[in-house]
Amino acid sequence: MDTPPLYRQLAAHYLDAIRAGALQPGDKLPSLRSLMRQHNISLSTALQLCRNMESEGWVEARDRSGYFVKRPRRLAIAAMDEPATDVAPDPAQYVGIHSKVSDFVARRRQGEVRIDFSSARGAPELYPGEALRASMMRLLRQKPALLTTATPSRSLNPLREAAARRGLRVGMTLSPQEVLTTNGCIEALNLALRAVAQPGDTVAVESPTFYGLLQVLESLGMRALEIPTSPQTGLSIEALEMALGAYDNIKAVVTVPHLQNPLGSVMPDAHKERLVALCERHGIALIEDDTYSELLDTDTPPRAIKSWDRTGNVIHCASLHKILAPGMRLGWISAGRWQSRVEMLKFTQSRSNEELSQGAVGDYMNTGDYDRHLRRLRERLRQQREQTADAIAAHFPAGTRLNYPPGGLQLWVELPDRLSSMTVFDRALRERIFVAPGTLFSNSSRFDHYLRINCGWPITEPIQAALRRLGEIVGECAAVQRKAA
Amino acid sequence: MDTPPLYRQLAAHYLDAIRAGALQPGDKLPSLRSLMRQHNISLSTALQLCRNMESEGWVEARDRSGYFVKRPRRLAIAAMDEPATDVAPDPAQYVGIHSKVSDFVARRRQGEVRIDFSSARGAPELYPGEALRASMMRLLRQKPALLTTATPSRSLNPLREAAARRGLRVGMTLSPQEVLTTNGCIEALNLALRAVAQPGDTVAVESPTFYGLLQVLESLGMRALEIPTSPQTGLSIEALEMALGAYDNIKAVVTVPHLQNPLGSVMPDAHKERLVALCERHGIALIEDDTYSELLDTDTPPRAIKSWDRTGNVIHCASLHKILAPGMRLGWISAGRWQSRVEMLKFTQSRSNEELSQGAVGDYMNTGDYDRHLRRLRERLRQQREQTADAIAAHFPAGTRLNYPPGGLQLWVELPDRLSSMTVFDRALRERIFVAPGTLFSNSSRFDHYLRINCGWPITEPIQAALRRLGEIVGECAAVQRKAA
Repeated sequence: MDTPPLYRQLAAHYLDAIRAGALQPGDKLPSLRSLMRQHNISLSTALQLCRNMESEGWVEARDRSGYFVKRPRRLAIAAMDEPATDVAPDPAQYVGIHSKVSDFVARRRQGEVRIDFSSARGAPELYPGEALRASMMRLLRQKPALLTTATPSRSLNPLREAAARRGLRVGMTLSPQEVLTTNGCIEALNLALRAVAQPGDTVAVESPTFYGLLQVLESLGMRALEIPTSPQTGLSIEALEMALGAYDNIKAVVTVPHLQNPLGSVMPDAHKERLVALCERHGIALIEDDTYSELLDTDTPPRAIKSWDRTGNVIHCASLHKILAPGMRLGWISAGRWQSRVEMLKFTQSRSNEELSQGAVGDYMNTGDYDRHLRRLRERLRQQREQTADAIAAHFPAGTRLNYPPGGLQLWVELPDRLSSMTVFDRALRERIFVAPGTLFSNSSRFDHYLRINCGWPITEPIQAALRRLGEIVGECAAVQRKAA
Repeated sequence: MDTPPLYRQLAAHYLDAIRAGALQPGDKLPSLRSLMRQHNISLSTALQLCRNMESEGWVEARDRSGYFVKRPRRLAIAAMDEPATDVAPDPAQYVGIHSKVSDFVARRRQGEVRIDFSSARGAPELYPGEALRASMMRLLRQKPALLTTATPSRSLNPLREAAARRGLRVGMTLSPQEVLTTNGCIEALNLALRAVAQPGDTVAVESPTFYGLLQVLESLGMRALEIPTSPQTGLSIEALEMALGAYDNIKAVVTVPHLQNPLGSVMPDAHKERLVALCERHGIALIEDDTYSELLDTDTPPRAIKSWDRTGNVIHCASLHKILAPGMRLGWISAGRWQSRVEMLKFTQSRSNEELSQGAVGDYMNTGDYDRHLRRLRERLRQQREQTADAIAAHFPAGTRLNYPPGGLQLWVELPDRLSSMTVFDRALRERIFVAPGTLFSNSSRFDHYLRINCGWPITEPIQAALRRLGEIVGECAAVQRKAA
């Protein structure tokens, strides 16, 4: 890893001091002269240090008196309430989630979107494109017949090996043979659901959840039963237990334990353990979507749910789309006691994935560069999340709430006065700003006054301006709503 | 294209003479001395010419009197009967095709297979690996962020453009937007079937047909109704019409019009036109699997069934797996009036295919090299088919029948005395020779005395020897059966 410039090293030092509380909001940074003396640096380096900390929102300059530690604006914004879990969840109905989503996609296509906050994607520059490309070229040189040789099914390759080996870090002991490569996590989820349930069956999901999952269920003719989910701790085990008592055709639960999409919640280990036991007791499959774990702000990744699995009842799905290579469709699945059924379904659905991409990416993952990339990625996403949250705190009207997650590339925002996110969506689209309205994240209308805001892109001036404008739009819409009431 | 060596040019000249009938079986080739004088070549070139024609089975050396034109052995072998089509087809039953196939795969894995005649694959060296690799490297250099940029759905790319443009040659006028890239033809078939039918519905298929299709139907919970299919002209339109009268839950027909797998039949244009009209009249979808058309021994490709489609009732599926890049999983689908449903299903099942492979392959297909490759491939496959057929004619016992197709990479062999192909399969496997028994190509037992033999590999001495040995095994099994009877 390259050594960062001196002013950045010093900025990190002062940031640590702020985080640790040694420097409190309102405290003054040392003067330029003290900084120069203390760290033996030039005036220009001292200035760079202060300006960097200012531009990242940690300190503010006050005329002639120096730089002062700011209270991060995002800390001023209220957190969300916990959902009620003591009510039986309403039975899920088919509501045509796909037609909802298609409608948004179609509206978007009517004009050119200028700023897109709607996706859950990282900017290309956050990922090691050059290293992946080099790895691929190397493999193409080493194995000239790779593109013209049919991939034998079940053959091992560096990706399956890397995924199995990294599984050890989160408590899963899987052989590479038990890790089946798929076309992204979405194919893994399709296979998992097809393996454990039939059309007409019910599948318990988190509420809210990402519309991709609701679309899969709809396309497979399965019914989604939405379980209340905490912005902090994820899926409510109590509510799930109640649902399992109330409905007898639930065949599976799908959960995103770490950095749930869209909430950003993280399930505590104790919940994971209870969830595994609960699903086993009821004989329903537990499908773990582990797409985001590597984006958690920690160098010690949390245990996978599957690490508590003793009976093969947990199906683990993951992907590289958010963490390593957005331009490649590589995911994998370890399906426990459904492994051979999943292998069959994968074979009949799309055959084995190509060797080339698996080899190139797997080779990279088997170097130390991969962990260095992940650390850098987490740090950059952390900065982007902080800046986005600060902008929301600064520009959105009072009453806005925010769930500030410990990782990942999106924020979940609750609008004030139960303001319709569709109104905001339509209004923002006129200015070519695209957001994901909460209505997409449920078959119910429970989240119609929420927005999901992507912060996977570096916070440039146009993005700052768009966040400011979005806040104004929310304010204007709220004012119109109040007048109408 | 490289100029072939002189002796090969001359061999092609004499081969043309044999094909045109100017040289008849039994005729003598000019002597070495006349060849040298006539073509102004050296003795060694004349010798190479004769030996090459001998090794390819066109002439035989007779002691001291020279080289004589052989009667191609494959012409001595009887063609297959046409199937009865005047009986109502039996309703298809779920017979667990997957467990049949798994059983074979598992048996194969018990030991190392030495010679594999079971697949439907071409050897890597038949495909332009070097050019594809160069195309991919060029694209990686041109677009450094390709691997780290998420592929927008619906974006155009060189593959979709190439597929649309080449569709014009076979009578289809499709825009690139109407050609959706899939993970091989197998995903295209999955999407087509999911778009037009539900679990429990019946789908008419050719009989015999490739087990991949039967597995897809089984995995989707659909029922296959097998329609008698001619080794010459493919799907029997009369039999299909009868079936449509007899069963009212048929939702679709799947057909491989050109070089049907395993028969190698080619549907005449008049049949295609009738089939399109019949399906329209009955309101059932017509799914065309066009995987093999480019392997037909002709430079003027036959019209696609979809070229007769005026109402969007035909779904066209194709792939590059057999014709260009066995190591890449690239196919496509044009789904007529189901296009938007297929796009939705593709999105929910596996998202868009990666840009890289589509770009690299599409760039290649948009050069003249692609047609030159296809011509070379057809010629090499023709030679391999001829040599394989000759070996079968020479070594398999009397009563063996063969369908000799006008292209492609496989032969369909009927064993004498209704000998069980499973017996032959088991016996051959003991000598590590792997064949595809006919039982895999139907849910019925109608083809239990057939074998499918791959001829996608250059006919080396070990392959010649294995074909000889396979013939002996068939003979031995037939003798045992006669004794037992």
